[in-house]
Amino acid sequence: FLKKKYSFKISMIGAGNVSSQLAPCLESAGHAVMEVFSRDQKNARRLCEELYHASAKKDLDFSQSESMLFILAVPDDAIREVAERVILPPDAILMHTSGSTPLKDLKRTPQVEIAVFYPLQTFSKNKKVNFEDIPILIEANNEETLSTVKKLAGSISKSVFEVSSEQRSVLHIAAVFASNFTNHMISLAEDLTKAYDIDFELLKPLVAETINKSLEVGAKQAQTGPAIRADFKTLERHHSFLKKYDKQLARIYKHITDSILSGKK
Amino acid sequence: FLKKKYSFKISMIGAGNVSSQLAPCLESAGHAVMEVFSRDQKNARRLCEELYHASAKKDLDFSQSESMLFILAVPDDAIREVAERVILPPDAILMHTSGSTPLKDLKRTPQVEIAVFYPLQTFSKNKKVNFEDIPILIEANNEETLSTVKKLAGSISKSVFEVSSEQRSVLHIAAVFASNFTNHMISLAEDLTKAYDIDFELLKPLVAETINKSLEVGAKQAQTGPAIRADFKTLERHHSFLKKYDKQLARIYKHITDSILSGKK
Repeated sequence: FLKKKYSFKISMIGAGNVSSQLAPCLESAGHAVMEVFSRDQKNARRLCEELYHASAKKDLDFSQSESMLFILAVPDDAIREVAERVILPPDAILMHTSGSTPLKDLKRTPQVEIAVFYPLQTFSKNKKVNFEDIPILIEANNEETLSTVKKLAGSISKSVFEVSSEQRSVLHIAAVFASNFTNHMISLAEDLTKAYDIDFELLKPLVAETINKSLEVGAKQAQTGPAIRADFKTLERHHSFLKKYDKQLARIYKHITDSILSGKK
Repeated sequence: FLKKKYSFKISMIGAGNVSSQLAPCLESAGHAVMEVFSRDQKNARRLCEELYHASAKKDLDFSQSESMLFILAVPDDAIREVAERVILPPDAILMHTSGSTPLKDLKRTPQVEIAVFYPLQTFSKNKKVNFEDIPILIEANNEETLSTVKKLAGSISKSVFEVSSEQRSVLHIAAVFASNFTNHMISLAEDLTKAYDIDFELLKPLVAETINKSLEVGAKQAQTGPAIRADFKTLERHHSFLKKYDKQLARIYKHITDSILSGKK
């Protein structure tokens, strides 16, 4: 859908879920991924096999690199350290891909510009995602860098937004609720059905319809169930059952129920 | 998709979300909805307008009714009382549509058979659902009744399952987690983004992908985020932020995070 207006030379630092999805996508968009570094060289080599130009880099000295953009896609708690150790060529832009890490955690040197390139999506190595519809939240230390990062993001996604470190950090917390916690609720339901020899397949149409409705009309409007109906008899029966079954689950039931009740108008 | 093998005369007791969806669907499948009763007569008349044969019934004396099947779709805490008050013709089958109500809450008289007809889906008055893919969980007091209810359910849905009152009650609790609580997590994320002037649209692709992945590979496999990574730095930062923002939200964050952590292998 995009015209190939820009072509960047890019190096990936990290070869995990984000890099594995992002690097091939960047190549499809006409950029050249030149190098891949990973602590685990096997991962770097595996990713390079999927790429046209890339070679596995064995250390963090990129001073001779042809790349202009360096994408730091490593676990959040390694960002600071790797950013301090990496040696970049002049005028390079170093950007991380993390939702919860402030821009300033990338230490800027006179020769290096810094930026954030955060694709707001959940990544697994094996399930291909389509970047076209994934929001990419960007931030940079100056307008020129921002403009470059915007070009990069716009070459793979239709929705690119400039978002401050604070907003991105709130978005990341919201994403934990909307994604990780929704998924965990499904996981708890799976456990419960398994324990009673019930096929979880039975619940799948309900989950799919719930989420469709929620995204369509808004979650407040879409809320159903005993809590929003203030059906205390059912709430009490569920809670007693869960207290016998699993105390931790009973506590979660109670806290979320209270939260639904307190949001009722 | 179904051949019209059976045609039942049916009366609806209750004209809420379930009846509003179920009655037209039953008619489309070739059955005749004869009467609709609702405490609020306006609701009964409104539903009758969408049906071919039905008239609004003003009381619970169905002794002269031509119907054989009586579908009791009223709020859970009204089932027992309405079931005691309703007067049915000989050989009628009275069935409720509740996930959490035991079969035996329908008092059986010598002349009346009892059953459960629980469509496992979330219903709103205005959003049409397709019953074909909705699991219908059935139960009855004897084989003959069960066979009749199975015919009725099979005439509108491809997935009909016989499920005991105990299993159904566990399923209902699992459904609260998988549906009501997932939706509430999205609702909390909506509130949070709104408070920081962030467009919730940004999170929708993430939610959609999360649920797709969860239903495809199983929620355990699909779990991502700081808790499953045991990224305590991020967990701590989120929790401190939430404690200042909203204590109840912080507690929910903590309990669900602990639950994810305790499920890690």
